[in-house]
Amino acid sequence: MDAHDARFEDRLTVVAGEIERLLDSLLAGEPQAGEIARPPRLVEAMRYTVLGGGKRLRPFLAVEAARLLGRAGPGALRAGAAIELLHCYSLVHDDLPSMDDDDLRRGKPTLHRAFDEATAILAGDALLTLAFDVLADAPTDEDATVRAELVLGLARAAGLGGMVGGQMLDLAAEGRYAAGPLGLGDIRRLQAMKTGALIAFSVEAGAIVGRANEGQRTALRAYGRALGAAFQVADDILDREASAETLGKRAGKDAEKGKATLVDALGLKAARAERDRLAGEAVAALAPFGAAADALRAAARFAAERQS
Amino acid sequence: MDAHDARFEDRLTVVAGEIERLLDSLLAGEPQAGEIARPPRLVEAMRYTVLGGGKRLRPFLAVEAARLLGRAGPGALRAGAAIELLHCYSLVHDDLPSMDDDDLRRGKPTLHRAFDEATAILAGDALLTLAFDVLADAPTDEDATVRAELVLGLARAAGLGGMVGGQMLDLAAEGRYAAGPLGLGDIRRLQAMKTGALIAFSVEAGAIVGRANEGQRTALRAYGRALGAAFQVADDILDREASAETLGKRAGKDAEKGKATLVDALGLKAARAERDRLAGEAVAALAPFGAAADALRAAARFAAERQS
Repeated sequence: MDAHDARFEDRLTVVAGEIERLLDSLLAGEPQAGEIARPPRLVEAMRYTVLGGGKRLRPFLAVEAARLLGRAGPGALRAGAAIELLHCYSLVHDDLPSMDDDDLRRGKPTLHRAFDEATAILAGDALLTLAFDVLADAPTDEDATVRAELVLGLARAAGLGGMVGGQMLDLAAEGRYAAGPLGLGDIRRLQAMKTGALIAFSVEAGAIVGRANEGQRTALRAYGRALGAAFQVADDILDREASAETLGKRAGKDAEKGKATLVDALGLKAARAERDRLAGEAVAALAPFGAAADALRAAARFAAERQS
Repeated sequence: MDAHDARFEDRLTVVAGEIERLLDSLLAGEPQAGEIARPPRLVEAMRYTVLGGGKRLRPFLAVEAARLLGRAGPGALRAGAAIELLHCYSLVHDDLPSMDDDDLRRGKPTLHRAFDEATAILAGDALLTLAFDVLADAPTDEDATVRAELVLGLARAAGLGGMVGGQMLDLAAEGRYAAGPLGLGDIRRLQAMKTGALIAFSVEAGAIVGRANEGQRTALRAYGRALGAAFQVADDILDREASAETLGKRAGKDAEKGKATLVDALGLKAARAERDRLAGEAVAALAPFGAAADALRAAARFAAERQS
C-alpha cells in the first residue's frame, strides 16, 4: 500500500468511527419523542445487525462527497448513518430463509439464525423505517428542503424500482418464477437496482447535503453510477475467487444458487477488465474537482480492488 | 342508520374512491424518476394487497382533519394514501408464516398464500418504502417543512417505538420469548403501539397538512389517541364475537393463539364499556371545532360500532 492509500484508509477508519458512535446513539433503548416504548429484544436485534461490523463504505461516500463541497458536518454524517441502516435492513431481509437462506454474514451468524425469523423480519422493518426517521429529523441545521430531498432519493433507490425490485429480479433469475435465463443487459440492470442504486445514492446524498450545483451534481452522479457498477462486478469476482474466511460469508454461493453474475456472463478475465474500466470511469468523472476529490478516487480503487 | 350517519358513509365512500384512484396511479408499472425498473411480479403483488379492499378509515381521518382546517386538497389525499400503503405493508408482514401465519385477509388469501413468502416480504418492504416516497415527493404545493414533518411523524408511528415494536411485543405476549403473561397496562401499551399509533398519526397528518395551531393540534391529538384505543378494543370484541364471514378474516384467532386482548383482561362487558367510553372521549375532544367536526365525530362512533 502506498502513502496515498494509507491516507485513504485512515480517513475511512475515522469516518467509520464517527458513524459507529452515531448509530450506537440512534439505537439506544430509550424511546424518542413520538415513540411509545422500544422493546429490548428488538433493540438488541437491531444492534446485533448494525454495530461493530462493515467497512461503512456507503457513509464514507456520503461524507466525502459533502466534504468536497465544504459541508462535511453533522448533516452529512446523519445521511451516512441513515444509508447504513438501510443497507443493514437489506442484508437482514435478503438473508432470510425464504430469500437467500444465508447462515453467515460479516463473519457471524445471520440475524434469523442468532435470533429467529420473526425477529429478523421485524428488525429489518424497523431499520428501514429508522433510516427515513433519521433523514427527516432535524437535530442539525439542515433545512427541510434538503431533508425531504434526501428522503425521496433514498426511497427511490431502495423501493420497488431500486433495491427491493433488484432482489425480486434476483430471485426470479434463480428460476423460481419460471423466468428465463438472463442476458447480459438484464444482469446489468438487476445489479444496478440491487447494489448500484444505494451506492450511487450515497454519493448523491453528499451532493444534496453539500448543495451541489448542476455541474457538480452531474459529475458526482457519473462517479456514483460507475462506482456502484464496479463494486458489484468486484463482488461477483470475489464470490468466485475468495474463501469464506476472507469474505466473512459463504463463498461460491452465487454459482451454487444459480444466481446470475457478470462472471458467468462475461468470464473471469473480461469481468476483471470491466471492473477496472468502471473504476477508471469513476475516477475520471471526478476530474472537475482536482486533488480535492482524491479521497473519492481512492474509494473507487478500493471498491474495485478489495479482497473482502 | 340515521340521516347523519348516512352522510358520513357517503363521505367515507367518496374519500375511499379518491384514495383508490391515487393508489392505483402510485402502483403503476412504469418507473418514476430515480427508479430503474419496476418488476411486474412485485407490482402485481403490491396491487393485489392494496387495491380494491378496506374501508380506508385512516386516509379518511387524515383528509377530514385537514378539511376541518380548510386544507382538504391533494396534499391531504397524498398523506392519506401514504398511510394506507404503510397500513397494508403491516398487514402483509404480520400475516407471514413466521408471524401470525394467517391465510385470509379482507376476504381473500393473504399475499404469501396467493404468491409466496419471499414475494410477500419484498412487497411489504416496497410498500413501506413507497409510503415515505409519497410523503416526501412534491407534486402538490406542500412545502418541504410539511413534507419532512409528515415523514418523521410516520416513521415514529411505524418504527421500533410504534407499530413494529408493538408487533414484537405481541409475539412476545404469545410466550415465544419466555415473556410472562401481560398485565392490563402492558396490553394497553402494546395496543397503543401496534394499532393506536397509526390511527393517531392519521389524524395528526391532517393537522400537519392543515397547519393546525397549538390548540387545534392538542384537541386533534386527544381525539386521535382516544379513537385509536377505541378502535382496538372494538377489534378485540369483534374477534371474540364475529364470524369469519362478517369479518373477512379468521375469527377467534386471538384466543387460539394466546394473544393478549383487552377482552381477556377485562371481560366482554367491561371491554364494551371501555370502548364506548373511549369513543365518547374522542367525540368530546372535538368540542372546540363545533359542528364542523361532525364527520370526525361520526368516524369515532363508526370505529367503535363497526361489525367488521
